[in-house]
Amino acid sequence: MVGSVAYDGVETPHGRVDRMLGGACTYISLAASYFTDVKIVAVVGDDFDSADVNLLAGRNIDLEGLERVPGLTFFWSGVYSADMNDRTTLRTDLNVFADFQPKLPPSYRSASHLFLGNIQPALQRSVLKQMRGLRLAGGDTMNYWICDYRHELVAAIEDWNVLLINDSEARLLSGENNLGKAAKIVQAMGPRTLVVKRGEYGAILFHDGGHFMAPGYLLEDVFDPTGAGDSFAGGFMGYLAAQGVDASGAGADPAVLRRAVIYGSVMGSFCCEKFGVDRFRTLTRAEIDARFQEFKSFTGF
Amino acid sequence: MVGSVAYDGVETPHGRVDRMLGGACTYISLAASYFTDVKIVAVVGDDFDSADVNLLAGRNIDLEGLERVPGLTFFWSGVYSADMNDRTTLRTDLNVFADFQPKLPPSYRSASHLFLGNIQPALQRSVLKQMRGLRLAGGDTMNYWICDYRHELVAAIEDWNVLLINDSEARLLSGENNLGKAAKIVQAMGPRTLVVKRGEYGAILFHDGGHFMAPGYLLEDVFDPTGAGDSFAGGFMGYLAAQGVDASGAGADPAVLRRAVIYGSVMGSFCCEKFGVDRFRTLTRAEIDARFQEFKSFTGF
Repeated sequence: MVGSVAYDGVETPHGRVDRMLGGACTYISLAASYFTDVKIVAVVGDDFDSADVNLLAGRNIDLEGLERVPGLTFFWSGVYSADMNDRTTLRTDLNVFADFQPKLPPSYRSASHLFLGNIQPALQRSVLKQMRGLRLAGGDTMNYWICDYRHELVAAIEDWNVLLINDSEARLLSGENNLGKAAKIVQAMGPRTLVVKRGEYGAILFHDGGHFMAPGYLLEDVFDPTGAGDSFAGGFMGYLAAQGVDASGAGADPAVLRRAVIYGSVMGSFCCEKFGVDRFRTLTRAEIDARFQEFKSFTGF
Repeated sequence: MVGSVAYDGVETPHGRVDRMLGGACTYISLAASYFTDVKIVAVVGDDFDSADVNLLAGRNIDLEGLERVPGLTFFWSGVYSADMNDRTTLRTDLNVFADFQPKLPPSYRSASHLFLGNIQPALQRSVLKQMRGLRLAGGDTMNYWICDYRHELVAAIEDWNVLLINDSEARLLSGENNLGKAAKIVQAMGPRTLVVKRGEYGAILFHDGGHFMAPGYLLEDVFDPTGAGDSFAGGFMGYLAAQGVDASGAGADPAVLRRAVIYGSVMGSFCCEKFGVDRFRTLTRAEIDARFQEFKSFTGF
């Protein structure tokens, strides 16, 4: 798992936390750790707290690729709207993340599955090129890279098997408003499997000319949606890795991909129940599987 | 089926029609006619076209309660945004609809199922009071009645078994942003079964303390969303009537309610494929059942 490890300041209608562990790679790795062994590639400053190291290590996440350099860890802060469907960024201090050049420890290069969190596409590409014998590569991106680094992004995703983005990003990347048509355009760019995340409305998996729709989980209280999309990605990719899904047709059983989308939805839903990564401090695999069954019960007919 | 029969002028990114058959009751009745015998209660002016009478009669819809009075039929026109998620009303001429006092022919009063389209709550209530031996009453409403006729509306829905509204209406009616909590508040007002329509994102059925989530159908082209919500209501209620579902616990099999939501979604999706009611000119029950199976195939896991 490659991406940002950061500190976040977040304000939602339920409260405010000035500084807590965050970053895409953190959420992806924590969520994936419930399904498979995770190795992290990221950079933090010398302010990075040992309690946060311990949280990740406690989930059995390999931190050999977590580079520590002098300076401050990436900091982001934002405030959510009353319905939590919008957020405004208050501050983005890239700090040590500005010079991040992902270097994979030799022990990482033979990993079977790779997930590239939302970072500059050229860096995502450089990581993929360091891998040997990769069976499945997936990644995320955002509107900034789609608009301002389009060529670099298109060159990167050409080699991906799975792309996870949200609906507005899918429309932006494809130039097409209709999601079904947008999916075909994006799939023609490289990723044979596309997952379009729709926030509270769930997700759509596009694969092999067909699609699968998963609704969002109806949470009684959304405390903090930060990291929900990344937790989705971690659950999705972690489950695929655990099932040994590879990019060849043989391994990509549509039923496994569908279950991966549900596990992604499950992890995204848990993430929202507490501030930041707090839900992952107590979450158990039994709770995850119980919620998976809940998804079955409120979607079957 | 009670509500408006109207002429509409509609402009979408796919084209424009200056005057075509429309109105909530029209869509509800056409959609329901694929499942059960429908009787219409509405008013039109002396400009109402015999071709439109023939379309309804051709779907075996009982028009004894379609009152004709001197004057012009209700006219509405609007224009949709580029993504068709918003629309702006250009003109609303109530015409003969302004003095609509629904009068049920004696042959209507013993009908087993009633659906009250979106009209003034006091009129909806007057219709319900004319019925004898009703087994299930459902209805729709809108933000205007929720805000400006709240007491009248609350008095009306108290006697309904099923309420079908969209998500923003559910939030407005309950004063609660979270849909799960909003549903409990609305259900406590009377309707034991609540269906929250979410446009392209599908619908949620709340019933007996649980819920069922149906995704929206991924249409390749949305030509005109006008009437989609009413077509949903027609498919939902028509299927319930055909299955003999009544308000007592015994008849309200959750599996039947879930299938009704899918049939509603199916009818709403077909409605969007052509302008106005045009899709219903050629639609067959076999196409409906094929799309029902499609819903199974893209939601199962």
